[in-house]
Formats: sequence, C-alpha cells, structure tokens
Amino acid sequence: MKLIKKLNILIVGLGLLGGSYAKGLKKLGFEVNAITKEQSSIDYALEHGIIDNGTTEIDPKLIGKADIVVFALYPHIFIKWVKENQQHFKSGAVLTDVTGVKGCVVDEIQSILRSDVEYIAAHPMAGKEVSGVENSDDAIFKGANYIVVPTEKNTQEAIELCSNLGELLGFAKVAVLSVEKHDKMIAFLSQLTHCIAVSLMCSSDDPDLVEYTGDSFRDLTRIANINDEMWSELFLSNKQALLEQMDIYRETFDKLYNFINNDDRDGMRDMMRLSTKRRREFNKKV
Amino acid sequence: MKLIKKLNILIVGLGLLGGSYAKGLKKLGFEVNAITKEQSSIDYALEHGIIDNGTTEIDPKLIGKADIVVFALYPHIFIKWVKENQQHFKSGAVLTDVTGVKGCVVDEIQSILRSDVEYIAAHPMAGKEVSGVENSDDAIFKGANYIVVPTEKNTQEAIELCSNLGELLGFAKVAVLSVEKHDKMIAFLSQLTHCIAVSLMCSSDDPDLVEYTGDSFRDLTRIANINDEMWSELFLSNKQALLEQMDIYRETFDKLYNFINNDDRDGMRDMMRLSTKRRREFNKKV
Repeated sequence: MKLIKKLNILIVGLGLLGGSYAKGLKKLGFEVNAITKEQSSIDYALEHGIIDNGTTEIDPKLIGKADIVVFALYPHIFIKWVKENQQHFKSGAVLTDVTGVKGCVVDEIQSILRSDVEYIAAHPMAGKEVSGVENSDDAIFKGANYIVVPTEKNTQEAIELCSNLGELLGFAKVAVLSVEKHDKMIAFLSQLTHCIAVSLMCSSDDPDLVEYTGDSFRDLTRIANINDEMWSELFLSNKQALLEQMDIYRETFDKLYNFINNDDRDGMRDMMRLSTKRRREFNKKV
Repeated sequence: MKLIKKLNILIVGLGLLGGSYAKGLKKLGFEVNAITKEQSSIDYALEHGIIDNGTTEIDPKLIGKADIVVFALYPHIFIKWVKENQQHFKSGAVLTDVTGVKGCVVDEIQSILRSDVEYIAAHPMAGKEVSGVENSDDAIFKGANYIVVPTEKNTQEAIELCSNLGELLGFAKVAVLSVEKHDKMIAFLSQLTHCIAVSLMCSSDDPDLVEYTGDSFRDLTRIANINDEMWSELFLSNKQALLEQMDIYRETFDKLYNFINNDDRDGMRDMMRLSTKRRREFNKKV
C-alpha cells in the first residue's frame, strides 16, 4: 500500500494527538474518520472540520472502510480495543499508533493480530501541556522527531508507509529504532526528565519561592505540570528501563554530592566540563 | 546619601554583570569608572562608551572619587580586594556587590570594613550563558529579581539606596531577604537546579541521544552548559545549605523511585498531582 490521498484513515482516540493527526491529514486531503469515547469530542471535531465522520460507537462499517487506523489511546485501552474489535478491520489494513512506550504494546498486539492486518508502531515525539481535541494542533509536529519502531514481523512496505506518514505530517526528522533501543531512549530522555521535574517541584513547600525564582527553576519544572493518569501508566509500562536510568542518574548525582561534601573542586569541575561539552553538542544540532 | 545622578560609581570587575551594570548606569547619566584585570576589557568598554574611565591598576584617585563601588568579582577575590585596598575608599562610600551567595562574604567583609564605609549586599538574579564585558547587556535585568541582603549592621539609608539602584537598573522586582533565607533559597532554586542539570547531562554518553531529544531534555539541561570555575566556587561557598537541599531532593526522588518499583500507582499520582498544583502557581506569577 502506498500513502496516497484517496486512502481512508480512521483515528481511534480523538484527544490532543489524535486530533492533531486528524487536522494534519485532513489538510493533506485524506478522508479522516474518528471513533472516540466522548460525543463532545466528535461534535467539536465535526464543527471545526477536523474529521469527516465520527462516532462513539464501535461502527463496523467505519472501521471496515479504513486503510490506515491510527490508535491514540492509553496502552492498556489500545490492547483491549484491538482484542475486542479486530474482526472489523479491512483485510490488508495497516494499524499504527502514537504510544510513548513500545515494549508493553508491540509484542502483545503483533502476537494477537489477524494475519491479514499489519501493525507498525510509531512514536511521534510531540505534545503540549494541555489535552483534548480542542487543543489539537498539527503545528506541534514541526521541528519534532517521529520514530518508527518495527519488529521482525513487519514488512518493509509498512515501515515505509509509516515513515511517509511522519514525513507528510511535517515532522522534522523520521527515524527507525528497535523496541529495546526506543524504550531505553525514552526512559532516559523523557521519563527520567519527568521524574526529576516532579521530584524537584515536590521538594519544597515554601510558597515564597515563586517570588524569587528565575529561568533555571522554571525550565527544570515546566514538565512538572503533568497528566498523572497518563504518565503513571507510561512509567509502569516501561518500569525496568526507567528504573535503570533512574539508578544511573542517582549515581551521577551522588558523585557530584560527594565532590561537594569533600570539597573536591577538581572533581566538580571535571563533571561540569563534561556536561558543558556534551550540552554544546546538543546546541549545535538544534 | 540619595541615589542622584551626579554620584560617581566605580565598578570593580568588568565582566558580564559588571559591564551590564556599567551600561545601565551610564545610560542613566551617572559617571561610571571601572577597575578590572584585563586591559582588553577596559579598551572594549571605553571604545563602546560603557565607562568613562578605566584601569587595570589599583588607582587610589579613581577609587577615592567613588560614592558607590559595585563589586562584580568571585567571592574570594572580592574579600581579598577589600582587605588590600579599603584604605582608598572615600569616607561615606557605599559598597555593594553582585555575588550569588552571601553567607561567605557578607559577615567577613562587614567585620573587617572601615567604620566610615558601608557594605550593603545585593544579588541581581540575572545572567546569560556567556561571559565577558563584550556580552554585557542591561536588558538582562528586565523581568528579573533583585535581592537586597542586609544584616543588622546596615543602615536603613543604605538599604534604600541599594534598593533604588535595583529599581533604576530596571529589575522587575526588588526584594529584601536575610542572609540565611537568601542562601537557602539560592541553594534550592539555583544551585540544586544546576547540580541536577550537570548530573543528568553526565548520566549518558550515548552520542545518538541528540538525534532523538525533545524539549523536555533540552529544557532540563540548558544550564548544564556551565562556567565550572565560577559555579564550583559558588557551590563550595554555600556548601551546607546546598547539601541540605540536595538531601531533601534526593529523598523526594527516592520516594518516587520506590513508588515505581512497588507498582504503587496511587503514590505516583499523588506526587504528580502535587507537582502539577505547585507548578501551576508558578505559571500564574510569570
């Protein structure tokens, strides 16, 4: 299957990301339908021309028309939905998703899925601190990374289709990673950072701090404003990889702590020079 | 002494902050002179109209003319400079500074200082990730906090003069804090955040990470690009307060670690809700 504009796309889960996919794909000329939990989300999306058709029901005709189905659901709901409704997929349909962790969904779904339908995992690394289709915006994809996460069960054709989808949506970079490498990278770059921000924000109850804070504290805690339902599920869905990264970070933090405690200025300066060197590499690649 | 524009101001240490003070004060109409280590900094400042006169020497006449002396030096150099050169101050002169920690300088300088000269400590909470008079810019004060840090040895007149200086320079907020409260607040809001950023940046040597990073990691490590000479001195100058804040933060981080390790989703969600509530208070006060 080639990614051409006469394809029919079904979004399952019309929240911030599902809505942003729908907006981007509609603008590109695809027929975009949606199934989601709340009628209000469907009403909003229809009123604003974000989708062509939508329902809160399991509509076999709407599902059966879709060439591509994009799942934008919490991991456990995604798995449950596929188990209960996969009989309605069109033969040859391609499923993809936006789930932020992969080990907990990819193997299970690929093992239960009908053999005439293919699931190719993807992780659009884009978001906002707000949720809901009302806040959806396909501009969040600009400058962001899109990662395709295939297994040996995937065909080259589906990997290419999924990559093309990321390119069409306007992502700055489309990459391909294994499930293990993806989940380790997410544990470090995304989940550990959220753990740090939450911990820092919970470390002081002094209400006066807000009066004196500068950019550093604001930067480090921006993501402490967090969707607790989603992130607690994502943390547990990637538990071992996350705990490993937390261990490594805590060892590094303790090393710095000990340098300070022992007045070891050279040790501190070595770490600071390393962090400066590494951070400058990041600046170059913005 | 009232802060009027015929006053003569001497900047000691013409780097990023000293240069930004000089620029702002010259624009306001003050006579601004400077003493600093490098002739190139004096040359640059004279060429760009940032100062009226400047030297790398200890010039008794230049020092003796100053009504206000602003020290923008590393803490140990600041103390040494005052010890060696205080005989040159004009009687009635007011000294102030930009030092980021206070316990390590305020008591010592106030205890050795001539009785006819007053030192009132201040901390302009502004900066950039670059240094030197060439990068100085008084626009960095806009939107930033300026904290006056008096002790019982200070007069009300000097506290007011120092506060007025912050207002004139364009700081968004001028506040007064005790040495202890200032240093505890700085340990938490500024030093701990730099420790976290450095530790996070030193926690992985995977060169591929830069390819996949998003805003979260970039935000948390922006300040990992750090002046190791200055920050190692600042950390050690505020060692006990910093270690206390590092302890509290590490306990909070460990609490979250244990919730994840024990699959305690309610515990995780409680922390996330607390961090979200607190962070939203910060958003309101931007």
